Amino acid sequence: MRSHRTAAILSTGDELVLGQLQDTNARWLAQRLTDRGVRVVEIAAVGDELAELASAIVRLTAKADVLVMTGGLGPTDGDLTRAALCMVSGDAIVDDPAQAQALTEKLSTRGRSVNARQLRQTQRPARARCLPNDFGTAPGLYLTLNLPASDGSHSCDVLALPGPPNELMPMWHAHAEPLLRPSRVVLTRLGYVLGMPEAECAARLGALTARDRTPLLGMTASGGILTLRHRYEGDDAAAGAVLLNADQAAVRELLGPNLFASALGGGAEGATPSDAVLAAAVLERLRGADQRLALAESCTGGLLGALLTGVPGSSAAMLGGVISYSNQLKQGLLGVPAELLAQHGAVSVPVAAAMATGAARACRADWALSITGVAGPGGGTDAKPAGTVVIAVARRTLEVDAESAKRDAQQLQPQHGQAHQPQTQQTFAQGFHAVDVRTFLFTGDRNDVRHRACVSALAMLWFALNPASGPVRLSWEMPVG
Amino acid sequence: MRSHRTAAILSTGDELVLGQLQDTNARWLAQRLTDRGVRVVEIAAVGDELAELASAIVRLTAKADVLVMTGGLGPTDGDLTRAALCMVSGDAIVDDPAQAQALTEKLSTRGRSVNARQLRQTQRPARARCLPNDFGTAPGLYLTLNLPASDGSHSCDVLALPGPPNELMPMWHAHAEPLLRPSRVVLTRLGYVLGMPEAECAARLGALTARDRTPLLGMTASGGILTLRHRYEGDDAAAGAVLLNADQAAVRELLGPNLFASALGGGAEGATPSDAVLAAAVLERLRGADQRLALAESCTGGLLGALLTGVPGSSAAMLGGVISYSNQLKQGLLGVPAELLAQHGAVSVPVAAAMATGAARACRADWALSITGVAGPGGGTDAKPAGTVVIAVARRTLEVDAESAKRDAQQLQPQHGQAHQPQTQQTFAQGFHAVDVRTFLFTGDRNDVRHRACVSALAMLWFALNPASGPVRLSWEMPVG
Repeated sequence: MRSHRTAAILSTGDELVLGQLQDTNARWLAQRLTDRGVRVVEIAAVGDELAELASAIVRLTAKADVLVMTGGLGPTDGDLTRAALCMVSGDAIVDDPAQAQALTEKLSTRGRSVNARQLRQTQRPARARCLPNDFGTAPGLYLTLNLPASDGSHSCDVLALPGPPNELMPMWHAHAEPLLRPSRVVLTRLGYVLGMPEAECAARLGALTARDRTPLLGMTASGGILTLRHRYEGDDAAAGAVLLNADQAAVRELLGPNLFASALGGGAEGATPSDAVLAAAVLERLRGADQRLALAESCTGGLLGALLTGVPGSSAAMLGGVISYSNQLKQGLLGVPAELLAQHGAVSVPVAAAMATGAARACRADWALSITGVAGPGGGTDAKPAGTVVIAVARRTLEVDAESAKRDAQQLQPQHGQAHQPQTQQTFAQGFHAVDVRTFLFTGDRNDVRHRACVSALAMLWFALNPASGPVRLSWEMPVG
Repeated sequence: MRSHRTAAILSTGDELVLGQLQDTNARWLAQRLTDRGVRVVEIAAVGDELAELASAIVRLTAKADVLVMTGGLGPTDGDLTRAALCMVSGDAIVDDPAQAQALTEKLSTRGRSVNARQLRQTQRPARARCLPNDFGTAPGLYLTLNLPASDGSHSCDVLALPGPPNELMPMWHAHAEPLLRPSRVVLTRLGYVLGMPEAECAARLGALTARDRTPLLGMTASGGILTLRHRYEGDDAAAGAVLLNADQAAVRELLGPNLFASALGGGAEGATPSDAVLAAAVLERLRGADQRLALAESCTGGLLGALLTGVPGSSAAMLGGVISYSNQLKQGLLGVPAELLAQHGAVSVPVAAAMATGAARACRADWALSITGVAGPGGGTDAKPAGTVVIAVARRTLEVDAESAKRDAQQLQPQHGQAHQPQTQQTFAQGFHAVDVRTFLFTGDRNDVRHRACVSALAMLWFALNPASGPVRLSWEMPVG
């Protein structure tokens, strides 16, 4: 059997061509296929119309070795994938007793009986094979189409998968991907970089980024984070892994703490957005040091908290914090002095610093991040236009504090008749200090500004947790005022 | 000139077929075209390869009246849209002096000089017209292709737009959409519904949902919210508006407060996600009543705050709140009694209620929402599996409170030698009460559970703000325990 060098992806659904639904399946499948070394030559979407769908199948199976279809497998009259595949293959539609029985049993465990419309989902083109749907009712289909080609020998394997992503993804991993016959070994590794623009990163990596090198190293910048993509294509998986390990070690050496995470490229790991990877890296570093984080969010209103708590297991390092959207809460819950707000305004270095130390104190945290800014579109002034954001990092410090020392000394008077032996000459009290406060001017709309602020806050904390890196200038930092 | 009845959308970029980037442009354009009454027959994406791109242009211009292309207009060797359009049209590539001058001036105001590579962006196929790019350097293109067709007369208008969404969207509105020649008037209105499943809503709306009716009324369910879509297609804009107004009034009558928002369908308004529409509706209702909201978020960790503060102008009704991710903060900042946590656990009706009243008290708010749950994948138990979420609504109330009355009475003793005249027989004190507490069991992954929890919390607050609706059963509510 010929190997799968090229693939096409075909999604079907009126909701796609009407623009009601974003086709996230196609992108996800393109990643999976690319990661397995199958080159995607086209992604297409058509509505729920039999002739359109059949004609797209004919066209795409003629130009690719494998066609992955999504949608159109449900029980309604608008679900036409089975009919279109019969039309193109010339197969009759037949019942699949095993699938029918499986569906009947599945529904009966939920206390429901099966009806004729539901059973329609278990029919298939005569020569097709069903792929079990472990998280839904419609099985997938696998079918080889033999097509007229100029050399008379083209065949294309069709994988038809259900539209709901929570059914498609597990079916892909369990039942579809194992049917792929990639022509080469493809291995991917990822690296994530903070605090340097693309050009500087490329300069530091030097010869590693040559376009004719194996493994190939590419990079893409998005939302303040650079993603490095190491890619090995060849015949020898073991040799490829050795080369990739060596390249990743070289990158670590060259980039130091600017490289904040590395990952395998395949599966869910490669599909995690880079901001979530950064949040996970920061949390892991905190957890390793047995330290806890608190937040004080103003213009981001909880977005940074949502990003951090989106990481499973984040509670090991994340305490929570305060959404101090109003000045009233900045004063009440964070203890920001009213005079500071009156004198400098809510979007200012002193207020950001006071918010961060206030959050650390209120939450009894080791570290705190604060964000205060003008997200826009309204609220800007000439001095502080929309996009102006001030971010502070605070940490718990041990300090000599005359007041606390006196208070502690009083509390250390002998009690219960026992003589007290002072342990130290000086008494140390816990304090909280802002260790880094920066002002940014972000471009873009309200969403962009808020998201960029969250990434910048995490970047500042990352570098504060990695002091060996010294002072780092964030590549997207634009001091104002 | 023939009108534009059908459209195709073609995106180009290796990052799309490699699955590195989600093609959000295609969906956005499909919405815009549909809203103008132009039917999208296919959406396609190909990589940066000249032959692939040219062949896709030939194919799609043959099947549609207008082809909207995105990407491939930049200055790099991988930007091939201009070359492909020349190949298909037979046009020579020519300089456009006006665009070249505009680009030179634009860069010089940023203190940069123009180079040959950048100027390449201002070239165009000889018969094409450039569309100004107000937010970037690459102009768009407009070109009519005359194609061999069976009846010998097919022509297709091609609109080529830049890939970055922040350049594409304004160019569409300002320069591309005015070139459309829709064959009919299409008017769209939207309605957003909470608290009833699709089938129940359809039953209540009755004859309004008949498939052969004008205007047509369709509905889609997503994330706990039903979106109604009224659509008029015809020749008479004024008559269409009258019909739509009548239908919207009928829906308001039939659904009461379950209909929480209405909107025009076109432009940015129709593109707002339904959860953001719900957040805006809740905030608007609060603002109208001059009331303020506070939050206490546990498993959602700031996601509800991010959703609410994502609405421009939200500060008029949103005070902020506490991300009480750890039990320590539930006690420290919200005053949830330690015994309550020990006895019932953090995910329980009493704790949710105490979190909400605690947040209202700490933030001096009129209303508060609390969310506490097991987002998963870990942390679940038999009694409280992953997906279990408890949500509470608290409000400020005036109550007779024996303790407060006594305290107030003491404070009301004559001071400064003046005799005190009591104003009322009874003394009222402010209190905070949980007015609605519900337990949900959501399905899906960590993201789904957290998002569903936010929508449910907003839904509960919406109905609390609309007491005329009486007790409402949320269609996705699944009591546990």
